[in-house]
Amino acid sequence: MEKPYRIQFFIIIISIAVFTCAYSRNTNLRSSSNTGVHNSNHHFTDTPLHPLDPLTVPEINKIRSILSAYGPFSSSSPSINTLSLDEPDKSQVVSWKTGEPLPPRRASVLAVLDGQTHVLTVDLNLGVVTTDVVNVGSGYPMLTTEDQLTASLVLYSNLEFNNSILARGVDFNDLVCGSSSPGWFGPGEEGKRIVKVQCFSGQNTPNYYMRPIEGLTVTVDVDKREIVKLTDTGRHIPIPKETNTDYLYATTSQFSDMTPETNPMSMEQPKGPSFTVENGHTVKWANWVFHLKPDIRAGMIISQAVVQAENGEYRSVMYKGFASEVFVPYMDPDQHWYFKSYLDVGEYGLGATAMALVELNDCPRYSYYMDGVFATADGRPFIQPNMICIFERYAGDIGWRHSEIPAMGFDMRESRPKVTLVARMVSSVGNYDYIFDWEFQTDGVIRIKVGLSGMLLVKATPYENLYNIPNTDDMTGPLVSENVIGVVHDHYISYHLDMDIDGQNNSFAEVNLVKEESLPGQSPRKSYLKAKRKVAKTENDAKIKFSLYDPSEFHVFNPARRSRLGNPTGYKIVPGGTAASLLDHDDPPQIRAAVTNNQIWVTPHNRSEEWVGGLLVSQSKGDDTIAVWSAR
Amino acid sequence: MEKPYRIQFFIIIISIAVFTCAYSRNTNLRSSSNTGVHNSNHHFTDTPLHPLDPLTVPEINKIRSILSAYGPFSSSSPSINTLSLDEPDKSQVVSWKTGEPLPPRRASVLAVLDGQTHVLTVDLNLGVVTTDVVNVGSGYPMLTTEDQLTASLVLYSNLEFNNSILARGVDFNDLVCGSSSPGWFGPGEEGKRIVKVQCFSGQNTPNYYMRPIEGLTVTVDVDKREIVKLTDTGRHIPIPKETNTDYLYATTSQFSDMTPETNPMSMEQPKGPSFTVENGHTVKWANWVFHLKPDIRAGMIISQAVVQAENGEYRSVMYKGFASEVFVPYMDPDQHWYFKSYLDVGEYGLGATAMALVELNDCPRYSYYMDGVFATADGRPFIQPNMICIFERYAGDIGWRHSEIPAMGFDMRESRPKVTLVARMVSSVGNYDYIFDWEFQTDGVIRIKVGLSGMLLVKATPYENLYNIPNTDDMTGPLVSENVIGVVHDHYISYHLDMDIDGQNNSFAEVNLVKEESLPGQSPRKSYLKAKRKVAKTENDAKIKFSLYDPSEFHVFNPARRSRLGNPTGYKIVPGGTAASLLDHDDPPQIRAAVTNNQIWVTPHNRSEEWVGGLLVSQSKGDDTIAVWSAR
Repeated sequence: MEKPYRIQFFIIIISIAVFTCAYSRNTNLRSSSNTGVHNSNHHFTDTPLHPLDPLTVPEINKIRSILSAYGPFSSSSPSINTLSLDEPDKSQVVSWKTGEPLPPRRASVLAVLDGQTHVLTVDLNLGVVTTDVVNVGSGYPMLTTEDQLTASLVLYSNLEFNNSILARGVDFNDLVCGSSSPGWFGPGEEGKRIVKVQCFSGQNTPNYYMRPIEGLTVTVDVDKREIVKLTDTGRHIPIPKETNTDYLYATTSQFSDMTPETNPMSMEQPKGPSFTVENGHTVKWANWVFHLKPDIRAGMIISQAVVQAENGEYRSVMYKGFASEVFVPYMDPDQHWYFKSYLDVGEYGLGATAMALVELNDCPRYSYYMDGVFATADGRPFIQPNMICIFERYAGDIGWRHSEIPAMGFDMRESRPKVTLVARMVSSVGNYDYIFDWEFQTDGVIRIKVGLSGMLLVKATPYENLYNIPNTDDMTGPLVSENVIGVVHDHYISYHLDMDIDGQNNSFAEVNLVKEESLPGQSPRKSYLKAKRKVAKTENDAKIKFSLYDPSEFHVFNPARRSRLGNPTGYKIVPGGTAASLLDHDDPPQIRAAVTNNQIWVTPHNRSEEWVGGLLVSQSKGDDTIAVWSAR
Repeated sequence: MEKPYRIQFFIIIISIAVFTCAYSRNTNLRSSSNTGVHNSNHHFTDTPLHPLDPLTVPEINKIRSILSAYGPFSSSSPSINTLSLDEPDKSQVVSWKTGEPLPPRRASVLAVLDGQTHVLTVDLNLGVVTTDVVNVGSGYPMLTTEDQLTASLVLYSNLEFNNSILARGVDFNDLVCGSSSPGWFGPGEEGKRIVKVQCFSGQNTPNYYMRPIEGLTVTVDVDKREIVKLTDTGRHIPIPKETNTDYLYATTSQFSDMTPETNPMSMEQPKGPSFTVENGHTVKWANWVFHLKPDIRAGMIISQAVVQAENGEYRSVMYKGFASEVFVPYMDPDQHWYFKSYLDVGEYGLGATAMALVELNDCPRYSYYMDGVFATADGRPFIQPNMICIFERYAGDIGWRHSEIPAMGFDMRESRPKVTLVARMVSSVGNYDYIFDWEFQTDGVIRIKVGLSGMLLVKATPYENLYNIPNTDDMTGPLVSENVIGVVHDHYISYHLDMDIDGQNNSFAEVNLVKEESLPGQSPRKSYLKAKRKVAKTENDAKIKFSLYDPSEFHVFNPARRSRLGNPTGYKIVPGGTAASLLDHDDPPQIRAAVTNNQIWVTPHNRSEEWVGGLLVSQSKGDDTIAVWSAR
């Protein structure tokens, strides 16, 4: 049985981002030329050349015409929430060879019409909608930018809302309102697509996040375009001042004096980079070949990663890898905060929130930039330029080295610098910027890294400093500035890794490190460590909770393929810094993010089980999570 | 009360080093010029300019003449195991200002004479030995290179040993023997300074580590220069073949074909680096200033690190930081392996084993190289050239960034590349190369990194592959090549961090993240996380065992210094990947490495408690470890 691997690891936010904004900038890099390779066409004539290539502009246009001609959608036009390639079956993709005709091209469309979610399949070759399933379970597709704009417009035309703003003395020209996914908290808000809108003052700063209009939350039905509920309980809470919140390089002259300047520095490649990107998506570097594409929901998808062995043979490593979900629960029961338990991938989309990268600052010189080709809510194609960058990385690190002590009769100092390949994308999900890296090493290691930058999501408080807070134990986070609390929260990031090491039918083993007592008289040593290998027989065997004092290694291996020594070939999964969710398992946010109940899950390959929070995550009750599939 | 902080974290070895040796090399970098700034004098006339500057060549020569005139040493000359600066009291160092005369210069000497360890203090100004304490507890100083040579010479002149070698058909010209510290395992080997010598065949490979002569261990008294015990039980075990073990760049043409070549790549700084090294040891970069020196035992010592705040004020962060001990227990009870439970810092010395760095491969272009000035066993000065490198690092990473979604009415893409400063040293403790980095960030973060490279310490076995091993459960490690087992082991690295954040008298707080249940009717949320801060009142409060499911943050702070908001100023200690030692607490190796019983210890400042394994570690019973001090 084929098993894809969902590895989940955690990032605990290090909340210094907002304080570092004046630092580590590099003027000269910013003004430099020769910034990289550009894929600078408008994609009007793109054609897919690989079974996994994303939908092209012509294909998206064709899909739009197919949908507009489709019965149910011909009268009133739906909101197209996501429109992306419906990948061919794995067997078709694996057996496909370059030059062969592509398997039939199909699109998967999530659309909302009259409050109902349609899960459609469009066949591009046949030119028809082949399936149209109306969702009867809970949940809605990702919010579109249009949904979020709708919500703001509804607000501005509402008297009660305007009074709340006026009461706070905020000029409407300074008003910035953002739509927040509402989560799911029981029957109260079911049966309609809603968002929770909260506002900020952008007066005298681009960093409106630091100036929240606290205690004002408006629940909006984005399909009916009406306000469901308006709660205004915070008129007594001042809007934090803008002092020192501006982070714009152009206008932060007041920072410049205190910014430690460093001389210009760059990675140079006199002969250019060593990688190529063929047919727009196939990346070849050193001993690696893989398919890379932008995705509206996952952001980046790495497919069919193969590595060349020393004997020249290309060996498959991973069929598909991507970020499946990101869980961000804030820790404040307040009525204006309790619902902030985001599932960024399913509610906002890592591709939908990935802006164009800043050349030379987000990615080094000689980077290759890949555009995202997506669709708007009315089905029109749109281009997200420079959404992904690919670059070779020399970080001053050592790949391998050894020195001998001359006294041993040898005098050897051997060292190889470490050069890697990085594919990078940044998703700006509101205040936060997630920096997603896939790093490939020539020794076969694949490194998944996530960095967190941007701004904190903060809560306004009447208190200017700790001294006038009556009971600091009641605070839901530290006071990070006058009248500003940085509410405690976590970021849990789950990756879907479909490993195909030397082919399919991989297995999973837990290698437990246990203490052995030496036998009487056996040794002066009383105890030593032994590695005990246990191959997972069932999904339950492979529901892993990390344990610091009962440690294990985790191996994905191919039982059918052995080294010349007889060891099965495989990869070791090495978790990074990890933490566990401490929320009640029956707390609504945790039910929806049940993936964080374990740190590793191993489930059979099933194309309908790629999104660990479910296909339709927004407002879902958690009835389609990996915990539910796995319990079946 | 002043508290230095000993933070201990763990590295679990990723044993791919030996397999990566063919990779990530870069011909062009190797042949390049302009390799960095050199401190290329012979130090004949160096003079100390800072109270913490290491002993100079003239000072070492003076100490040698003082010692030779010293009564007990005038007749027979001792073995000088370590000779280094006896740092002035912290109060003197902190109050010293540039330009002022230095506090009295003193040397601390560990010498062995007639099997006794002398702990001496030499006053350079008075020109006399001021204290001479003969050690009555257990333990001896670091082994010297001379000790290790002695051991080999004793072997070669022994008939029984020579017969054992001949019986294995090894040509004496190919014989390589290394001295291993014996650990301590009860009374059997007490009262004499011994080493365990084991040998390898260097036939047809520079990588003799891969060709162990298994089952032959000779115990040698290095002071009496005689063999205490010879055990030969492995004549039936073949010496592994040399096939593909050669890692030398010059002779590995057979690798070249299979090595993925990448184009040359380097960090370039058209205006040169932004840091300066003043008076040989004071490093100034961006907003950081610190004192850096080589040390025979710790390798590198960072002192008086101060960071410049936005208002221009220099604020103290750390008085002293260094690697205090490295515990490397191998997990094999076999009579030839049980004793391999190394304490690399106290037994071998990270400075004593730090070879000259390989320019452009160990450190990037524009690195500054610092020499080590140490003493030989007869007290003569010797120079370890290019022992430490300092460089600015741009790794293609992002220091801070934020993008706004244009739909929000903003179109901002701000990003600052990340540039840091790194001080690096590599210790080659036999087969292993430890890469020690201190990395400083402009946002105030200090990063401690340890990389592991070199070769595995392997055990020869009669078995060529897994198929002819009767019971693989008996193996003490994986079969990594024909007849070669990579024995399971760990590397535990303990750092001593004497934090002085905004001055002395810092405190330690554990911030525990606990689940709170929301009150009935309080919130749709059932649970949330709360940070509960507990300030350590006693040393026991601050004996920290990490807990994944009861997580905490760890803060070092200055209760006397508060931000304008009233928050105490401080640093957060963020552990990296960690593991716990699973050995019995009463197992001799664990008693000596009791520091690994906890992951953080906090103890009062005490100059005699800098080495967590004790001052005299070799063969010690563990009667001077941090666990012993802390229990007092």
